[in-house]
Amino acid sequence: MSESVSGSVMVENLSRFSINQMTVKQLSLPELVDACLELGVPGVGLWREPVQSYGVEATAKLIREAGLAVTTLCRGGFFTAIDPDERAKALDDNRAAIDEAATLGTDTLVLVSGGLPPGSKDLHGARERIADALAELGPYAAERGVRLAIEPLHPMFASDRCVVSTLAQALDLAERFPAEQVGVTVDTYHIWWDDQAPAQITRAGAGGRIHTFQLADWTTPLPEGVLTGRGQIGDGAIDMREWKGYVEAAGYTGPIEVELFNAGLWARDGREVLAETAARFVEHAA
Amino acid sequence: MSESVSGSVMVENLSRFSINQMTVKQLSLPELVDACLELGVPGVGLWREPVQSYGVEATAKLIREAGLAVTTLCRGGFFTAIDPDERAKALDDNRAAIDEAATLGTDTLVLVSGGLPPGSKDLHGARERIADALAELGPYAAERGVRLAIEPLHPMFASDRCVVSTLAQALDLAERFPAEQVGVTVDTYHIWWDDQAPAQITRAGAGGRIHTFQLADWTTPLPEGVLTGRGQIGDGAIDMREWKGYVEAAGYTGPIEVELFNAGLWARDGREVLAETAARFVEHAA
Repeated sequence: MSESVSGSVMVENLSRFSINQMTVKQLSLPELVDACLELGVPGVGLWREPVQSYGVEATAKLIREAGLAVTTLCRGGFFTAIDPDERAKALDDNRAAIDEAATLGTDTLVLVSGGLPPGSKDLHGARERIADALAELGPYAAERGVRLAIEPLHPMFASDRCVVSTLAQALDLAERFPAEQVGVTVDTYHIWWDDQAPAQITRAGAGGRIHTFQLADWTTPLPEGVLTGRGQIGDGAIDMREWKGYVEAAGYTGPIEVELFNAGLWARDGREVLAETAARFVEHAA
Repeated sequence: MSESVSGSVMVENLSRFSINQMTVKQLSLPELVDACLELGVPGVGLWREPVQSYGVEATAKLIREAGLAVTTLCRGGFFTAIDPDERAKALDDNRAAIDEAATLGTDTLVLVSGGLPPGSKDLHGARERIADALAELGPYAAERGVRLAIEPLHPMFASDRCVVSTLAQALDLAERFPAEQVGVTVDTYHIWWDDQAPAQITRAGAGGRIHTFQLADWTTPLPEGVLTGRGQIGDGAIDMREWKGYVEAAGYTGPIEVELFNAGLWARDGREVLAETAARFVEHAA
C-alpha cells in the first residue's frame, strides 16, 4: 500500500496512530495540528522544548481545541548525576515536566534515565540513583494523573544517555513502585534485537506497565553519534506487526506513536513526511 | 602508571597480554613480530586477510621462530545467508579458516556469525542457520585441534554483522555442541552494558566455554558506521579489572587480547600504539 491509500481507509486505520513531534520537528505546533487534522491523525506525542517555546498553556489550548490527544510528553529523566545540587536540579526539572504533562492533558511522561556521570564506570550505581529519583517523583506524578514511563534505550546509548538498556532492567526498576506511578516505554528501535524482550513485554503487560508503545525502524549504516539513525517504518530490519502483536497479546490497546529522529526526514517538507509516516503506519502496523 | 613503566615490571605484567593484529594494522607481520619481541609481548591474535597476504605457512614460521603464541585467528562466521550456494561457500570458507588456524598453531577461531540477509527481518531464523553451520563445522574444527568461539557482538551490529547480541544467546548456541567444538568469545566492548553478562560468564566458565577473552573500551561519540569506535583501554566507560575478575572467577586463566578498531590509533606509529596499549594493559588489567 502506498501514500495513495484512500482518505477514508486511511482515517479508519489511523485510529491508534500518534505522531511524535520530533518526527516532523520542522513543523511548528500550529502547522503540526493543521497537518494532523487534514490527514486524520488523532494523536501527537509532544516534546518539552518546542512546547515551552510556544507556551505550555497555549499548546494545551491549541491541541484541545483541535480535538487531538496528547499521547505522551517527552521527556523527563537524566537522574544519574552524583552531585547533590545537580540531583536536586534534575528532580525540580522533572517535577516541572510532570506539571507540564498534566497541563497538556497527557497521562504519560517518557523518561530517558541518563548515562554515566563523567569519569564513572559504575552502571549499577547509576541505576540505583534512578530508583532513588523515581521514589521521589512517582507519588508527585500520580497525584497529578501522570505516569512515568521508563524507556530502555538501545545499549549503544548506555554510557552517554541511558544506563537502562533492556526492558528487563526497566521493569526491575519500575516494579519497585506502583504501576500507576511507574511503567515502561516499549519502543521497537531500542529492543528489537533482544530475544528476551517478548517475554518482558508479557511481564510488563501483566503488571499494567506498558505506558506507551513507540515505533521506529532499524536501518544501517548508523550516522556519527548514532542519535539520528532512527529509520522510517518499513525501511529497516524490524517486523512492526510482530512487535505490535506482542504488546497486544500483553493487553495493550492504546496509541501507537511513531518517533523518528532522522536528518533525512527533517530535511524534507514536514507535511509530506507526516503523510508518508501515516501511510507507512497503515501499511506496516495498522 | 604511565608508558614509563620499567621494562622488567612490564614484561612480568605482560605475561597474559596478547595484541590483536587489527589494533596495529599499520604494522606488517614482520614489524609486528619485531615490536612484540622488543616490548616483551608474548602473544598475538591474527586476522585472516593479512595472514593470507603474507602467506599462511610463512606467517606460521615467522611467529613460531619468534617464540610468540597465536592466541586466536579472526575470523570465521557469516553463516546467516539463506541462498544454498552462498551457504555452501560460507562453509567452505570456514573450513579454510579452520585449516589456517591449525597451521598457525592457534586453538581458537573467533566467529562473527553474520547479520540479517538483505530484506529479512527474521532474527530467530538467522540464529538457527548459525546452529546448522556449527553442526557442520564443529567436528571438522575439533579434529584439527581448533575450537570455534562465537562472539556476541554489541546489539548495534545485530542487523548487518551479527545476530548473536548477548553472551546468553551465544551460549544457547554453543551449548548445543561439545565445548571442545564450540565456545564463546568474551569481549568487554560488546557486553559491558549487559547486567546479565556476569552470570553468563559464570555459565560459560562452568562449561569450559570461555575460549578467548578480549578487551576494548567504550567511548563516545561513536563514529559513522560505528565499527571503528573501539576505545583504547582506560579511555572509556568499562572497568577492565571488574570484567577480568568475572572471567577469572569463572576459571579462565588464558591470554587476554586487546583488539581495537580505531581510526585514530591506525593513523599513528604502530610501535608507539603497541607500547601504549601494553602500558594501558598493565595499568588497567594486569
